[in-house]
Amino acid sequence: MIRGVLSMLLVLVTVSSTLAAFYIPKTGKRIPQTLSRGWGDQLIWAQTYEEGLYWSRSRSKPLMVIFHLDNCPHSQALKKALAEDYEIQKNLDEDFIVLNLVYETIDKHLSPDGQYVPRILFVDPSMTVRADINGRYSNRMYAYEVKDTKLLLSNMKKAKKLLKPEL
Amino acid sequence: MIRGVLSMLLVLVTVSSTLAAFYIPKTGKRIPQTLSRGWGDQLIWAQTYEEGLYWSRSRSKPLMVIFHLDNCPHSQALKKALAEDYEIQKNLDEDFIVLNLVYETIDKHLSPDGQYVPRILFVDPSMTVRADINGRYSNRMYAYEVKDTKLLLSNMKKAKKLLKPEL
Repeated sequence: MIRGVLSMLLVLVTVSSTLAAFYIPKTGKRIPQTLSRGWGDQLIWAQTYEEGLYWSRSRSKPLMVIFHLDNCPHSQALKKALAEDYEIQKNLDEDFIVLNLVYETIDKHLSPDGQYVPRILFVDPSMTVRADINGRYSNRMYAYEVKDTKLLLSNMKKAKKLLKPEL
Repeated sequence: MIRGVLSMLLVLVTVSSTLAAFYIPKTGKRIPQTLSRGWGDQLIWAQTYEEGLYWSRSRSKPLMVIFHLDNCPHSQALKKALAEDYEIQKNLDEDFIVLNLVYETIDKHLSPDGQYVPRILFVDPSMTVRADINGRYSNRMYAYEVKDTKLLLSNMKKAKKLLKPEL
């Protein structure tokens, strides 16, 4: 009798655990993708350009947009440098809206001299793309390399001086 | 002498660990945001609508767009139901491109009867928003509730029948 009840219980447990089975791909369990994609896990990232612009306007903070690719070694090296740079992360967290994209937007203003990666553009809360804030490479004005973190930090300071709309 | 060397080593270790200090916000360490936002951690999510359209076209798979909000109880309940639904997750993983957004896009076609959450729209690889695939509520045609998972699954089957461009 007790054995019967136990078997019954076992069947019930098996059935309910089957019903509650979460989906796992045939290729194996995946690590959930993060919005930071490794550019700063402690930052609060906008998901889309529209969202970034909205937060930038409503919080009066400049938006920093990073274009990059997972299979680009320059992007990966810059990502590591930025993610590990305390000053940059702190500044981004406190004074910027941040967005990183692996896909171009339809806004041509975000590619003033072409679509390449890695590329960093600043956008003023007035929704003006700051094409005047650039890196050190004349053929790729918005590219930064690992050794350019100090320049990036100084460019972030420029971006923090907001453009005032003319009266 | 040995004590001196050890002290030196200790100082070096302390200094290097200070230099490598990762940024943590004043308010405490945050859990990194995921692209899934809880709608299916095992799915591969597009980040933006442009990215979703690109993958949809290039892989000839329909795109499913979920509009939701973190502070909306209906969104949260539907999210739990979908994330735990094996059939839905499997179908989404194998036959769909998926995108979840907490912010509206500029494409008015994605809000055929207004901007509300939760709201689910299908987009054909031909980039046609499938306004013909809707839920059971006449005042909010693209809303789904927890009890509508079977209907959603049948709508997903409709979306899988791709529109053929006219010759």
